[in-house]
Amino acid sequence: MGARITGLETFDVRFPTSRELDGSDAMNEAPDYSAAYLVLHTDDGHAGHGFTFTIGRGNELAVAAARVIGERAVGLAVDDVVHDLGGFARHVAADSQLRWLGPDKGTIHLGTAAVVNAAWDLAAKLAGKPVWKLLADMSPRQLVDLVDWRYLTDALTPDQALEMLQRQEPGRAEREAYLREHGYPAYTTSAGWLGYDDGKLARLCREAVEQGWDAVKLKVGGNLDDDIRRCRIAREILGPHRRLMIDANQTLGVPDAIRWARALGESGIWWFEEPTSPDDVLGHAAIAAEIAPIKVATGEHAHNAVMFKQFLAADAIGICQIDACRLGGVNEAVAALLLAATKGVPVCPHAGGVGLCELVRHLSMFDYVAVSGSMENRVVEYVDHLHEHFVDPVRMRGSRYLVPELPGYSAEMHPDPVRRFAFPDGEAWRT
Amino acid sequence: MGARITGLETFDVRFPTSRELDGSDAMNEAPDYSAAYLVLHTDDGHAGHGFTFTIGRGNELAVAAARVIGERAVGLAVDDVVHDLGGFARHVAADSQLRWLGPDKGTIHLGTAAVVNAAWDLAAKLAGKPVWKLLADMSPRQLVDLVDWRYLTDALTPDQALEMLQRQEPGRAEREAYLREHGYPAYTTSAGWLGYDDGKLARLCREAVEQGWDAVKLKVGGNLDDDIRRCRIAREILGPHRRLMIDANQTLGVPDAIRWARALGESGIWWFEEPTSPDDVLGHAAIAAEIAPIKVATGEHAHNAVMFKQFLAADAIGICQIDACRLGGVNEAVAALLLAATKGVPVCPHAGGVGLCELVRHLSMFDYVAVSGSMENRVVEYVDHLHEHFVDPVRMRGSRYLVPELPGYSAEMHPDPVRRFAFPDGEAWRT
Repeated sequence: MGARITGLETFDVRFPTSRELDGSDAMNEAPDYSAAYLVLHTDDGHAGHGFTFTIGRGNELAVAAARVIGERAVGLAVDDVVHDLGGFARHVAADSQLRWLGPDKGTIHLGTAAVVNAAWDLAAKLAGKPVWKLLADMSPRQLVDLVDWRYLTDALTPDQALEMLQRQEPGRAEREAYLREHGYPAYTTSAGWLGYDDGKLARLCREAVEQGWDAVKLKVGGNLDDDIRRCRIAREILGPHRRLMIDANQTLGVPDAIRWARALGESGIWWFEEPTSPDDVLGHAAIAAEIAPIKVATGEHAHNAVMFKQFLAADAIGICQIDACRLGGVNEAVAALLLAATKGVPVCPHAGGVGLCELVRHLSMFDYVAVSGSMENRVVEYVDHLHEHFVDPVRMRGSRYLVPELPGYSAEMHPDPVRRFAFPDGEAWRT
Repeated sequence: MGARITGLETFDVRFPTSRELDGSDAMNEAPDYSAAYLVLHTDDGHAGHGFTFTIGRGNELAVAAARVIGERAVGLAVDDVVHDLGGFARHVAADSQLRWLGPDKGTIHLGTAAVVNAAWDLAAKLAGKPVWKLLADMSPRQLVDLVDWRYLTDALTPDQALEMLQRQEPGRAEREAYLREHGYPAYTTSAGWLGYDDGKLARLCREAVEQGWDAVKLKVGGNLDDDIRRCRIAREILGPHRRLMIDANQTLGVPDAIRWARALGESGIWWFEEPTSPDDVLGHAAIAAEIAPIKVATGEHAHNAVMFKQFLAADAIGICQIDACRLGGVNEAVAALLLAATKGVPVCPHAGGVGLCELVRHLSMFDYVAVSGSMENRVVEYVDHLHEHFVDPVRMRGSRYLVPELPGYSAEMHPDPVRRFAFPDGEAWRT
């Protein structure tokens, strides 16, 4: 008889980042980056680590969601899980009563993400590979079977996906070698949080240039005059050739978003991120039509593949920003990668927070090797926060992510910070 | 010094409805209708009752969400709340850290619904009016101020809404008198749950006809041949003139939904409800274009006004099915009513479950008196379950809802069922 998943632990881990206004933007003025962290244990001594990301209060709800979804994994045979991760992802999300709380969105879906990601971590550890490589070694048929196709076939059928993946198969080895040598391009958001004053913004932009960054993102969406001034400061320092992106974090209605983009366009903007409600596919489409050649970017709050299907079908996004913990884990991220590839839209994952950089590099690297086959106009967000708490943290060379080498999904945290930043009883919160 | 909201109680109330397969459909095979029930207390002895609805497991998450959102109400002056319910609704939903769990969707938004609905119950009790009448007595300007316009102005501006409401003002008194005399039309879902066999379906359809129902809804979406047979049985009994609606509860992809509608169309279908993912605006639009004159209906899982804005803009729905507990309470329901009215799309609220019939009658009656001004092609769902637990239960005359007369939002439950059906320790769950 083979091993089974027999144990489940959850942890409410919160970092008091709001004390420094790191991560402040027009919608999220004072986030405390947090993880609803989960460990699946097997009865033969293995473990899979996963989490979802929140920004503080309410993380206890995400933890409770991860637990209730995670209980659906307990008792399953490890072999069944790791050899049918598509079936596993569908199983944990399929409790009809829990589904009512979403469906496929909000807190319960954050819980699904934590559990599915933990299963991938377990599978990759057992396979002795990092997740990007586990994915990149799967056959096109295996990859197609990861996806829940129920709501996607009007945009892409499994057969079409299969054909697309097969077309990329011959180049996989060459791209993997390139990736291992050169890494994957990134951009930095560390310079441009809204809570920073002009002096700090200018200093951080200069430091970014010195560190070799060629793409920098600024938070906007509070006051337009301030934003015009801040974009000019950034452009002045970045020079004419580096890329500048802006991010309104959902604060604007459609007419204001168009107004903002037109005013800030003078500073040479590559993309305008989260201009309005993350649910507003048609609103993004209207904005995209009005502000070209500035590209509309969204996705960190796009809760499932059905949303990406629509954003892509409506030509509403020019940049597709999947989130490894908002979507229901690796499987739904693969679905989004496939959908984006059919339209030739670059996927530039959302990261930052806590642990998101660690995860999304796997997704983009897999995308490059086996799905889109391209790094052109693709950059993974990078924020220099909290990496030290992870067993397999990001490794950068200049402005590029290097490939993770350790088996797993890089979701595992060191035990000490899990204890120290436990909410509300950890040392960091008692003082 | 005036009164303040000083207390908050929450209750996890679950009815073991799955034991009878009441409420079974293609997605939700065995629901236990549940309420995340909440009471706001004032320091001068008043109380507002509210709840959100779930179907069992996970109701503890909705309760936790109601509590964490409800805590934002504690300490507020009652006068400030009841005289600025728009500001109150925006306030409770505006915690930026909690917002990350949605935003404006899923479990956290269910919690917002419970809290906002409780505030309306309190305000209406203090005003000595049922909520429908409290709304119907508000000036157009007061109604406009209830709505969060941030993401809606590309479809409808506050000024346009004001003008629309002003146009309906002269007819309010006459319509209110008509409503008090004739009630509001309803349809029944009690006959057609998917778990019932053909014999029970036929018997319940016959009983519905005898009871005077002229619109009946059947659950479909499992097996097409079964559905063809069940629709024929229903149509045979209903005769040529009564209305038959079908509901797939999100089980189908877009191509299958079109196939289903074409096959079942032979039985004369008024609307096809939840044909596919509730997030798929463009998918519903594609279905609507293909299956006319059958109307596409959705909304019980449309999580906020931005979704309704899009469904309406894309001509994706011919019937708008708001849910009193999925949207963020009365305020967001008002927004949806206004948006639907601009397009002349009938609002036929989702009900059933526990307590939804009690609430939505208020919304439709207000819609008739002050917003759309019409009952044409409008019916409120009616299911004959669990009304006995409410202090102000629905009152029907034939197939019509009579106006509620008691002050409040009819959300208050009797203390005994709240105790008896408390999960997991109430008597009903211990046996």
